[in-house]
Amino acid sequence: MKLAGVQMDVAIGDPERNRRRMAERFVEAREQGADLVVFPECAVTGYCFESRDEVVAFAEPIPGTSTAFFSKLCAERGGAIAFGMIEAEKNRLFNAAALVGANGLIASYRKVHLPFLGVDRFLDFGDRPFAVCETAGVRLGLNICYDSGFPESSRVLALAGAELVALPTNWPSGAEILAEHAIATRALENAIYYAAVNRVGEERGFRFIGRSRICDPAGRALAVGSATDEEILYADIDVELARRKTIVRVPGKHLIDRLADRRPEFYATLAEPHGLPRPGRDLPAERFK
Amino acid sequence: MKLAGVQMDVAIGDPERNRRRMAERFVEAREQGADLVVFPECAVTGYCFESRDEVVAFAEPIPGTSTAFFSKLCAERGGAIAFGMIEAEKNRLFNAAALVGANGLIASYRKVHLPFLGVDRFLDFGDRPFAVCETAGVRLGLNICYDSGFPESSRVLALAGAELVALPTNWPSGAEILAEHAIATRALENAIYYAAVNRVGEERGFRFIGRSRICDPAGRALAVGSATDEEILYADIDVELARRKTIVRVPGKHLIDRLADRRPEFYATLAEPHGLPRPGRDLPAERFK
Repeated sequence: MKLAGVQMDVAIGDPERNRRRMAERFVEAREQGADLVVFPECAVTGYCFESRDEVVAFAEPIPGTSTAFFSKLCAERGGAIAFGMIEAEKNRLFNAAALVGANGLIASYRKVHLPFLGVDRFLDFGDRPFAVCETAGVRLGLNICYDSGFPESSRVLALAGAELVALPTNWPSGAEILAEHAIATRALENAIYYAAVNRVGEERGFRFIGRSRICDPAGRALAVGSATDEEILYADIDVELARRKTIVRVPGKHLIDRLADRRPEFYATLAEPHGLPRPGRDLPAERFK
Repeated sequence: MKLAGVQMDVAIGDPERNRRRMAERFVEAREQGADLVVFPECAVTGYCFESRDEVVAFAEPIPGTSTAFFSKLCAERGGAIAFGMIEAEKNRLFNAAALVGANGLIASYRKVHLPFLGVDRFLDFGDRPFAVCETAGVRLGLNICYDSGFPESSRVLALAGAELVALPTNWPSGAEILAEHAIATRALENAIYYAAVNRVGEERGFRFIGRSRICDPAGRALAVGSATDEEILYADIDVELARRKTIVRVPGKHLIDRLADRRPEFYATLAEPHGLPRPGRDLPAERFK
């Protein structure tokens, strides 16, 4: 399976232009043999909206206009596409990622972890469990941007059988250390492939830092994007490598297994409610010190 | 608070020599003002034992000979010390870390995650929950080596209030990617200090890769050891930085909080028993493919 990650700039508030440019990149990646093409977070809409009212105009249902547009493209060109958009469901709005193929929507994801930043300030918290779907012969899990700072986001997917996690992201300035280290760590600690696809460019004073990264199940970087340029990253995915959690072997015994060697009897507090306030909402003053 | 990590070689099966050399390094670090001095995993004993019988001769109770030796040193010189050793309790043996000060034992830890490698092949699995203690004004949690590959090990400690995780380790060849990326990630994702102190040198054909690393709560490297040399790493620890989980602020709102922004309602599977066999024990053949 060949994976492509499209590091690109996005025009805020111009979905038609963004979809058109995404389609061009998708065709280019298909010509290079990519089976699955991943785009950044909010690739259809842009990120730095200033109010909920402003973003409502660009939110769509899933399935809807954007998923139909890309599904038609997949029907013509083959392959599958995962991309970031704003999802509207009744009066709720989500930072979402959709995965579509020739037959329409395969899966979608609503960002679970929200920072109080950009459009996320005005959105609803993802309300559905992390889930694994199958596309192009790979068991795929979706995360978005800030999720990558929480090891739980990809761990839960790996435990559910994910072989690849795709992360449409909009990492801004300040996320350099996360971009450099966390993606390799998520891949290695779960023995899965991990593809983080960031945007570049500026939007209303916000600069996005590129540095998209695709890692193999040992955490090795298969492709790394520049800090500023639009480009397409490619990587070959060998699902057998991601299925084999055992890293080293001696005859008849194993030795390292990233999942089997877990000790969940000591992890109870990870799943307990913490009672701390959500970002940007009702925060007591002492948390701002 | 000033932290020191002593990257050093270890002589297998010669605890007296190892303690003497550790004492020299401890005195040197104290002269540089270190309040807490961390040594590698199995610093008292060495790691590459070939049988349980061979290692029994070097296992000690906690408290015991080694903790008394270093406690006396702390009484003379001030400061505290964390170091790796093999613990004997009745007929059980643990890969352990002890933390001692002038008044004796402060805390100890039994390695929870065991690879089927070196002395760990013959040891018992850590049987006590991860716990936080206080020393030199810092809330400290202990992990050992392989624990660092499991995000749960430090996450549980951060949720329990740890501001610093110390990791005595014996990373061998092959752990380079983990050493480079996972320590920064553990620090950043929990907004804590993280000090990984590895050994160098060879032992029975096994090479240890140095690369000790101390990171701040943003994941920045404060000190990084070489791949081969004995050396002492130093870092100043500002516990206020580790207490403030909020990374960015706007007036009256927060936006990023590494613990408060968790969504444990979606993490239930992390604490569920997985039913997979432990490393080196009763592994079905299909896991060796």
